[in-house]
Amino acid sequence: MDKKPTLFTVLSPKLTDLYNLDGCIVVIIDVFRATSTIASALYNGAERVIPVAQVDACIEIGKELNAITAGERDGKIIEGLLHGNSPLEYSREFIENKTLVLTTTNGTQMLHLALERGADEIITGSFPNLNSVCAHLKLRRKNVILACSGWKNRFNMEDTLFAGAVIDNVKDFFEIHCDSSLMAQNLFKVQKKDLKTFAALTTHWHRLAKYGLENDMLYCLSENVADVLPFYDKTKQCLYSKTSID
Amino acid sequence: MDKKPTLFTVLSPKLTDLYNLDGCIVVIIDVFRATSTIASALYNGAERVIPVAQVDACIEIGKELNAITAGERDGKIIEGLLHGNSPLEYSREFIENKTLVLTTTNGTQMLHLALERGADEIITGSFPNLNSVCAHLKLRRKNVILACSGWKNRFNMEDTLFAGAVIDNVKDFFEIHCDSSLMAQNLFKVQKKDLKTFAALTTHWHRLAKYGLENDMLYCLSENVADVLPFYDKTKQCLYSKTSID
Repeated sequence: MDKKPTLFTVLSPKLTDLYNLDGCIVVIIDVFRATSTIASALYNGAERVIPVAQVDACIEIGKELNAITAGERDGKIIEGLLHGNSPLEYSREFIENKTLVLTTTNGTQMLHLALERGADEIITGSFPNLNSVCAHLKLRRKNVILACSGWKNRFNMEDTLFAGAVIDNVKDFFEIHCDSSLMAQNLFKVQKKDLKTFAALTTHWHRLAKYGLENDMLYCLSENVADVLPFYDKTKQCLYSKTSID
Repeated sequence: MDKKPTLFTVLSPKLTDLYNLDGCIVVIIDVFRATSTIASALYNGAERVIPVAQVDACIEIGKELNAITAGERDGKIIEGLLHGNSPLEYSREFIENKTLVLTTTNGTQMLHLALERGADEIITGSFPNLNSVCAHLKLRRKNVILACSGWKNRFNMEDTLFAGAVIDNVKDFFEIHCDSSLMAQNLFKVQKKDLKTFAALTTHWHRLAKYGLENDMLYCLSENVADVLPFYDKTKQCLYSKTSID
């Protein structure tokens, strides 16, 4: 029997350099809310999502491409941008066939780290597109890194729970000798019965609830409601929705 | 009512610089096996334990003080040292009134980081001295950092489980807004019924079981079997057993 590929979970961008990303599929996870918003926009027909770290770059690229620019800090739309970072804003009527330029902090940092460190493929994941992520990983049979974006480099619960959900689904297809993965899977298995109540205990929930973003977060925890596969095109530096015929 | 002190859990030495250690009590945790061995040696009457990072320093200090030198790499005693890193080696007959110079990698790294970053008090903890650690934290009422040593900077399960055990005991005395702590406590609460079976799933267990060290690890997971408080004396650069009359 062929050797199974490996799977590791990275709990913070700061721990990324402890892992070998060469030839890996890296799943960027930023549940509240970047990778949930990316899934939502692409599911509703956005042509592509361009993730950028800096607000200036977001504005500049937005003008150049006549695209929708979006980003928040502390629950408010950033000055100079058109929209927020709420997955619920990106309905089909609004986003279909358009380009979204999205500035985020934690998620974009992790994506750029994955690029620098030689990731072979980069996809993004959150509960709204759980099944597509798992199906892709099982199909490709390459080594996998589940990359939790965390919050300002700290461990966060919601990204780890999503890593656990992926592991719970794909575990039979991979060799997993990694305490982070064991922890994530264990946590998800115990909490999945009532994920939304448990998630409300997390620091990020408290932070975003201050801005009235509870509905956003409930969406971000809903499985398969925007079930696409956001795939990063390294040449075009954007995410598009990959289908099995790509 | 007075404001409660804060408690944070640091999951890896690499994440230490994300936290403010000024004025904190830092609990160094290295369950397999450094902080379990420290508890065991002090419980059985060792006068002091001098933790050092380098083997050369261990040999030199050992000669100077006519002390017992100890350290392992890959389950074997390091050449030039007298003893291993097994807590079961340090019986009262052997260690009473003696000085132990112990070289470890992960635990010593975390201890030195805590010193550099301005920790006010440093103590060490593992399951064999769980109660003493918790009693001290509840008595002192200062901000606390539970510092998991991990393995080569990676997250590990056993240190996190011990952090969870401490949190489960002291939680009413502290303000805890920290996903790492929430995760650790949750993990411990779920697994405490059968900690030893769960611990056998971890990477470190597999690593050490190859060298026949299962009994060592079972001891390291046994609550309150060496219930002392190893307290770091910054001037003398050693750990001694602190009692309530100190």
